[in-house]
Amino acid sequence: MTTKADQKAQVAAEYNAFLALCPSRRLLDRISNKWVVLILCALGGDTSAPPGTTPAPKAMRYSELARLLTGVSQKMLTQTLRALERDGLLTRTVTPTVPVTVTYELTDLGLSLHHLTRGLRQWAQTHMDQVLTNREKHDAQAPRP
Amino acid sequence: MTTKADQKAQVAAEYNAFLALCPSRRLLDRISNKWVVLILCALGGDTSAPPGTTPAPKAMRYSELARLLTGVSQKMLTQTLRALERDGLLTRTVTPTVPVTVTYELTDLGLSLHHLTRGLRQWAQTHMDQVLTNREKHDAQAPRP
Repeated sequence: MTTKADQKAQVAAEYNAFLALCPSRRLLDRISNKWVVLILCALGGDTSAPPGTTPAPKAMRYSELARLLTGVSQKMLTQTLRALERDGLLTRTVTPTVPVTVTYELTDLGLSLHHLTRGLRQWAQTHMDQVLTNREKHDAQAPRP
Repeated sequence: MTTKADQKAQVAAEYNAFLALCPSRRLLDRISNKWVVLILCALGGDTSAPPGTTPAPKAMRYSELARLLTGVSQKMLTQTLRALERDGLLTRTVTPTVPVTVTYELTDLGLSLHHLTRGLRQWAQTHMDQVLTNREKHDAQAPRP
């Protein structure tokens, strides 16, 4: 008899992102992207949750996402949202108002990835000072022979 | 009196990766990269740890990394390792053998990020089948009006 944990381990063993031709390498490439990380953080509700509290996922309109993710181009945001919808990480709902309202919401699969992307954003923000100090130290050293 | 948790929350509040000009946006961009994820997974010891066990970090030679990360170009691997060294995520040690031996090892800061990159790789491998099913379903639907 195989347990659920065994099955999970087995599935994980079938794919190996270290291999260039494994489909999971492309999936890792897709999710290792700052716009994916920030979109998941936004829909996961990170912006409205103070540090230390659990964020509540929320549906957001295209225009809200575009405003929150400063610097993202319309083309990049549209492409990234389409890819995430195709992968089943979020749903896109069109409400026939005038003009139409388009909202995006995380699926359960998207929520499972959100826990990690939230961690990545928090890591970058929490360790920024340490990284800046490391860079200064590194640049002050004599160049490598 | 401020506790350590308060201080951490305060530091995290100073930086905001949603903002295009915040240094943490660039750091998030740097770490949201498949080669960074795979290098940290390799040096974190993920390849030698069976699923469910805790991996033991290990020092690796340049050539070992190049072999493990199939498809990575020499230029990309060198650039990524240098950036990670500058940020203080790994150390580079040169042993004066003939030819010289160059090894890379995670620092404590690198190890703190490894927990997240390990999760990302595992997520991609574990949810690959589900994502493939979602894509098939999505592509079978009529094209959007």
